[in-house]
Amino acid sequence: MISVSEAKKQIIKHSKSPRVEEKLLSNALGFALAETLYAKMDTPPFNNSAMDGYAFSCALWDKKSSLTIIGEVQAGSNNNLKTGPNEAIRIFTGAPVPADVDTVIMQEKVNLEDGKITILDDGLFQGSNIRPKGSQTKKGDVALKKGQIITPAGISYLASMGFSKVKVYAKPKVSIIITGKELVKAGNKLKSAEIYESNGMGLTAGFRQMGIEPLSVALVDDVLESIEKAIQSQLSSDIILLTGGVSVGNYDLVPTALENCGVEKIFHKVKQKPGKPFYFGKTATSLIFALPGNPAAVMTCFYEYVTAPIDAFTQKKHLKSLTMRLKNDFNKKPGLTYFLKGKTIESEVEILDSQLSYMLNSFAVADCLITLEEEKTEFKKGDLVKVLMID
Amino acid sequence: MISVSEAKKQIIKHSKSPRVEEKLLSNALGFALAETLYAKMDTPPFNNSAMDGYAFSCALWDKKSSLTIIGEVQAGSNNNLKTGPNEAIRIFTGAPVPADVDTVIMQEKVNLEDGKITILDDGLFQGSNIRPKGSQTKKGDVALKKGQIITPAGISYLASMGFSKVKVYAKPKVSIIITGKELVKAGNKLKSAEIYESNGMGLTAGFRQMGIEPLSVALVDDVLESIEKAIQSQLSSDIILLTGGVSVGNYDLVPTALENCGVEKIFHKVKQKPGKPFYFGKTATSLIFALPGNPAAVMTCFYEYVTAPIDAFTQKKHLKSLTMRLKNDFNKKPGLTYFLKGKTIESEVEILDSQLSYMLNSFAVADCLITLEEEKTEFKKGDLVKVLMID
Repeated sequence: MISVSEAKKQIIKHSKSPRVEEKLLSNALGFALAETLYAKMDTPPFNNSAMDGYAFSCALWDKKSSLTIIGEVQAGSNNNLKTGPNEAIRIFTGAPVPADVDTVIMQEKVNLEDGKITILDDGLFQGSNIRPKGSQTKKGDVALKKGQIITPAGISYLASMGFSKVKVYAKPKVSIIITGKELVKAGNKLKSAEIYESNGMGLTAGFRQMGIEPLSVALVDDVLESIEKAIQSQLSSDIILLTGGVSVGNYDLVPTALENCGVEKIFHKVKQKPGKPFYFGKTATSLIFALPGNPAAVMTCFYEYVTAPIDAFTQKKHLKSLTMRLKNDFNKKPGLTYFLKGKTIESEVEILDSQLSYMLNSFAVADCLITLEEEKTEFKKGDLVKVLMID
Repeated sequence: MISVSEAKKQIIKHSKSPRVEEKLLSNALGFALAETLYAKMDTPPFNNSAMDGYAFSCALWDKKSSLTIIGEVQAGSNNNLKTGPNEAIRIFTGAPVPADVDTVIMQEKVNLEDGKITILDDGLFQGSNIRPKGSQTKKGDVALKKGQIITPAGISYLASMGFSKVKVYAKPKVSIIITGKELVKAGNKLKSAEIYESNGMGLTAGFRQMGIEPLSVALVDDVLESIEKAIQSQLSSDIILLTGGVSVGNYDLVPTALENCGVEKIFHKVKQKPGKPFYFGKTATSLIFALPGNPAAVMTCFYEYVTAPIDAFTQKKHLKSLTMRLKNDFNKKPGLTYFLKGKTIESEVEILDSQLSYMLNSFAVADCLITLEEEKTEFKKGDLVKVLMID
């Protein structure tokens, strides 16, 4: 049996390298860029007006006369009007500034009479209210760096430079295999000794929270051949999760099935609660996590272990780790790391009731998992603990 | 022109009441529950074994003899074996505990020989390793409270009680209308005076980050009739966003179009930078936000204003507000609230470069917006500022 920190180290060590894929920019939200993007053009692509107002040549203006309006330029149009000294052009926000003017004055800061404007702005200077071509990016500049997570503003920014496709780190292909002859799908009536299947739904939702849609969720009986068949059919996935049948009872067929399918065991059993029988293995193409069947153990192992190789694969940190002060005392046995359902309240974290591995009532309202380290037995209000945010 | 706080107050005041809809539990991730759910059954539904081991009646055991194994019960099966004194049943995790036994001993804590077990566990007590029926929830107990956000563990928990549908607060129907004759869709070649459309893509991504898929994104010319037609076709949406054409220039047709469509103006223009010409109005069924066309102003107003009525409608807080210390100095003019692109670094927040309203290069890498209050002009490193997390 290995420690939690050793288990985490092993998983990171065997994590898969990222895979690059090209996506439409409109579908790239939340992905990490797999390439540094260089500006394809100057932005703004031309000098344009920052305001609704009047454009004129400040250099040619005598600083006294009013200016005669000789035309108009709207955003999206370009009529290349020529202005002479003491002439101005009506201009609107975003409209290209004609070549021989150098300044725009806001419409609120002029007096307009008989087709002429008098300038009322003391603060005006040559170049006022003009957004120069290339003042955001010059063609060839780094637009966004490799590794940057693409945000809504990032999409808008890249779109403004004409990008329509980007290379990003792909999400992993994941498959879920639920084992257990006692499990019945929701909507059916329970017979004696049966319970409702819930792990497949919880894990699917966990993946969806990271924007990953599982390729398949299979429910299989505790029969060696069925489990092997289910594993074999999913071996092209990057990550395979199994639940149940991973302990040492006579019906715990998952480790045997994995061995028969050519999966290399990296470790089996971790000094932790919940989820002691946790198994991790791999093939040339897949990482395999076999989680104990208790619902709280399943979700705990998912958050504590399965997210790490997803982060590595997608080059994106999905869950935040914090250090917080405990709000209540807790005693535990030595020799096992405890993962407890918690709720953060401002800068403190409360250990919730109902921590047993078959219970989810507290997990359903938890916003974090608290790690209580292996050897320590007494935890007091105010002690600093590691907290993994799961909300 | 009203203040930012007054604008926010008005938007909250006019926000729409939540709408309830029933969803499949599997599709309810991230929604807020619109009903308190009561347990439909006891969970666990029957006494079951927490371990692989041996079940026996501790009450009838003489505390000395070894126990004779008289049968086996697997998870999912129920053979109602009867045990007498000093008899035991092989049992596996999750299997129903027969009626006349009261204790399970772990398989690791017995000595098995000739079909008999000797008990080696000093810590064993009557009831050990049995998960009693109803120990998580009793039928009729509150399972989850109204308002609870449904998490992956929550889905697993509700599934385990046989819930397959839940009532939640619906997401709003939203429509986006982008105005501007200078705008060209990505993939096309820019002609003189044209720029790439980016606001529609940024806003769509912003909504998607909240799990909302806009019903429609329309790109319309600066022509009154076109804008009116676009607005009218979307008046069944809960939220309509327009960008551009909302200032006071001759081609700023959006306020007129909205008035012609029967939209009641709540306010127009806010003492803020960026986004001063920001407009908010409503009809009997829709909230209408008309945002200035500058890309940074669009995304800023989206995060600072549009999320509030979405939160109210969905009964869910989408963005976190924090108070943090500035990492750098900043001077501003009085009379306007500034919203600045920022990046948090541990407990501090840095004001990024490129804050102009037409620039998105810093917004693309920002993880927050910093509010610098209206009247204050000098901000120093270490000053506390309000921060809205947008990542």
